[in-house]
Amino acid sequence: MSAGTDVLLVLTNLPDADSADRVTKVVLESRQAACVNRLPACASAYWWNGAIEQATEIPLLIKTTRATYSALEAVLRKAHPYEVPEIIAVPVTAGLPAYLAWVAGETRPPSV
Amino acid sequence: MSAGTDVLLVLTNLPDADSADRVTKVVLESRQAACVNRLPACASAYWWNGAIEQATEIPLLIKTTRATYSALEAVLRKAHPYEVPEIIAVPVTAGLPAYLAWVAGETRPPSV
Amino acid sequence: MSAGTDVLLVLTNLPDADSADRVTKVVLESRQAACVNRLPACASAYWWNGAIEQATEIPLLIKTTRATYSALEAVLRKAHPYEVPEIIAVPVTAGLPAYLAWVAGETRPPSV
Repeated sequence: MSAGTDVLLVLTNLPDADSADRVTKVVLESRQAACVNRLPACASAYWWNGAIEQATEIPLLIKTTRATYSALEAVLRKAHPYEVPEIIAVPVTAGLPAYLAWVAGETRPPSV
Repeated sequence: MSAGTDVLLVLTNLPDADSADRVTKVVLESRQAACVNRLPACASAYWWNGAIEQATEIPLLIKTTRATYSALEAVLRKAHPYEVPEIIAVPVTAGLPAYLAWVAGETRPPSV
Repeated sequence: MSAGTDVLLVLTNLPDADSADRVTKVVLESRQAACVNRLPACASAYWWNGAIEQATEIPLLIKTTRATYSALEAVLRKAHPYEVPEIIAVPVTAGLPAYLAWVAGETRPPSV
């Protein structure tokens, strides 16, 4: 197994189905992601302004490449209704070669 | 915390509960995984043949080892109904030692 | 993109909503986590004592830092009803800087 791949699994959480659908559409149409999985609503608990808050959220699992990540983060940030949204990227260290190639082929990193 | 462990978290998505159950059974019975979590159905959106497609999918979270990954990928590929299934592995950099040992003990990498 | 961040995504599975709520409360109140997402129940299958067992479980996604992980693992272990609970940490290689800073600011690693 190689030391890693160029694919990233990016997680974010939206407050409702409408915003989750909107963000999904934006990241796919801009070619900053090849695939988005919208999980069923989860129950989130977190520290905010000195208190533990609770909220229902919709997690998204977004598949992109390392080269596209910065552009994806910028668009997620802009499209996201939260002040400090969760946007985190987890590395993919191995994967089906045809799938990894598909993610790379369906995304467009910014031109340099 | 050490630089990493031998355990991998592998993600794949199946089109329905029947195929998810079948794949779960295959990877456990062949000892290519110690544990499989079948999440509730998610809503997936992805590029395919130049259009954004949508589908309902069942995500599986599969716990295996680095040594067993290649054999797991081969079996998943064969058992999976998709032409290009998502099969991606995320590293586990730390974990409860007893749990990590349990994953290693319940899986069987191919003999060399 | 940098080689990594100080944030970890920690996964564990509880047997029911009550234990999931209790563990969520413990790790937040002790400042060993900044955020916990409780996913809907999943169907787990795993090897145990030579047989494939099945159970319904509640997955938790816990956001903490590398510096806090060992203390989090110890508390999870103590609060968890299982003999060998799944506690695994996945690295976060990139993320929204404001979110990463928030996780660090809301958690308290043990004093040295």
